[in-house]
Amino acid sequence: MERIEHIGLAVRDLAASEKIFEKLLGRPAYKKEFVASEQVTTVFFKVGDVKIELLGSENKDSAIGKFLDKRGEGIHHIAFHSGDLQNDTARLTQEGFAFTGSPRLGAENKMVNFIHPASASGVLVELCMDNLENHE
Amino acid sequence: MERIEHIGLAVRDLAASEKIFEKLLGRPAYKKEFVASEQVTTVFFKVGDVKIELLGSENKDSAIGKFLDKRGEGIHHIAFHSGDLQNDTARLTQEGFAFTGSPRLGAENKMVNFIHPASASGVLVELCMDNLENHE
Repeated sequence: MERIEHIGLAVRDLAASEKIFEKLLGRPAYKKEFVASEQVTTVFFKVGDVKIELLGSENKDSAIGKFLDKRGEGIHHIAFHSGDLQNDTARLTQEGFAFTGSPRLGAENKMVNFIHPASASGVLVELCMDNLENHE
Repeated sequence: MERIEHIGLAVRDLAASEKIFEKLLGRPAYKKEFVASEQVTTVFFKVGDVKIELLGSENKDSAIGKFLDKRGEGIHHIAFHSGDLQNDTARLTQEGFAFTGSPRLGAENKMVNFIHPASASGVLVELCMDNLENHE
């Protein structure tokens, strides 16, 4: 893993949290995006080379909806940039990390995959790669 | 806030988690340090410009000990670099953010202060500044 791509925060009230982070970071969000595969709406801020992604649930049964029910608001995951998601998934699986599923389309037109917190000290780890679909 | 300085992870077994993150990140930790003010031992990794700080409690009553009891292992805080901690504390307090205390000495010879999660969407936010004590 060569760099952190973003940090995801699960929030109850996306509009209220957007204002809070706008004040904290001293800049507005640069993007708002609905991610169908996860049933979440995301709001992105940039801080140096890293993004802060606010995650609001659009559906009680979404992963974020369940997280909010169980844990409340807070830091949800850390995402690392991957240059080759299939390879990294295979390599880390072999090293003992359990992924929650297969690579799929996430926010910002990226392919994403998640390592289960049970195999990473309670941390939900995302790997994400720019989607190369249009270049194939 | 111009950049993220580190992400802090609360872990139960520091040695086991150090091995997990060494495998995940593909590199060894660069430092291990006991922080008396917080009663924690920290292990630092570098990923691009950002650090990952593993936090192991040396005392059940430390902030990390209490966090582990209440929430279990996982992501504990996000730390932003501050160029002027006194000023940022005053400015953000005026903007409605509640700090947990006053600037104090943390890991890596940095002065640190924390915004209470209740005023930042459930996120414990650290501000940290290089300690200028020796230059005064």
